[in-house]
Amino acid sequence: MIKVSVLYPKTDSSSFDMDYYCNSHIPMVREKLGAALKDVAVDGGLGGGAPDSPPTYAAMGHLYFDTVEDFQSAFGPHADAIMADIPNYTNVEPIIQVSDVQL
Amino acid sequence: MIKVSVLYPKTDSSSFDMDYYCNSHIPMVREKLGAALKDVAVDGGLGGGAPDSPPTYAAMGHLYFDTVEDFQSAFGPHADAIMADIPNYTNVEPIIQVSDVQL
Repeated sequence: MIKVSVLYPKTDSSSFDMDYYCNSHIPMVREKLGAALKDVAVDGGLGGGAPDSPPTYAAMGHLYFDTVEDFQSAFGPHADAIMADIPNYTNVEPIIQVSDVQL
Repeated sequence: MIKVSVLYPKTDSSSFDMDYYCNSHIPMVREKLGAALKDVAVDGGLGGGAPDSPPTYAAMGHLYFDTVEDFQSAFGPHADAIMADIPNYTNVEPIIQVSDVQL
């Protein structure tokens, strides 16, 4: 299983609309990616490791696929539509990481 | 449910021993945190969003608890022992983020 993590940095000037992300963006992503998308997880940043420190990321979205090829095949045809929705919920450019699920 | 994510940056000089992490560090963390620790996930970085780009993080460990207070109560008494094990599998200082599980 592989996981595509989309990490949205939190800065003094960043914004992130969690309601739009969970209730509009993610449902659209699910619909476009179809059965290749095995699971979705979304985290909202609360804080950092030190007391009262801010979180590094305002939000993290994680998309699970069986293989990297499954992700690429499913995402490619819809990349433009999915990316075009990002400004509707945030003003930051996300960091994308592809990981192998170890545990 | 909350999630404590421990993110290990990947740099030109960073090292990360995934075998030790999964088979020695995480079992020790599970034993020390006990029933407060609801679940564990571990990701190994494969790449970034652009073709052939490196991952931002060599590894990400995620620890799930019912509440932030449960995490603090379980982790506090064992923080020193858990932190002391980090140099056994990496030479980087991890980024810690506490998140609220939204989806």
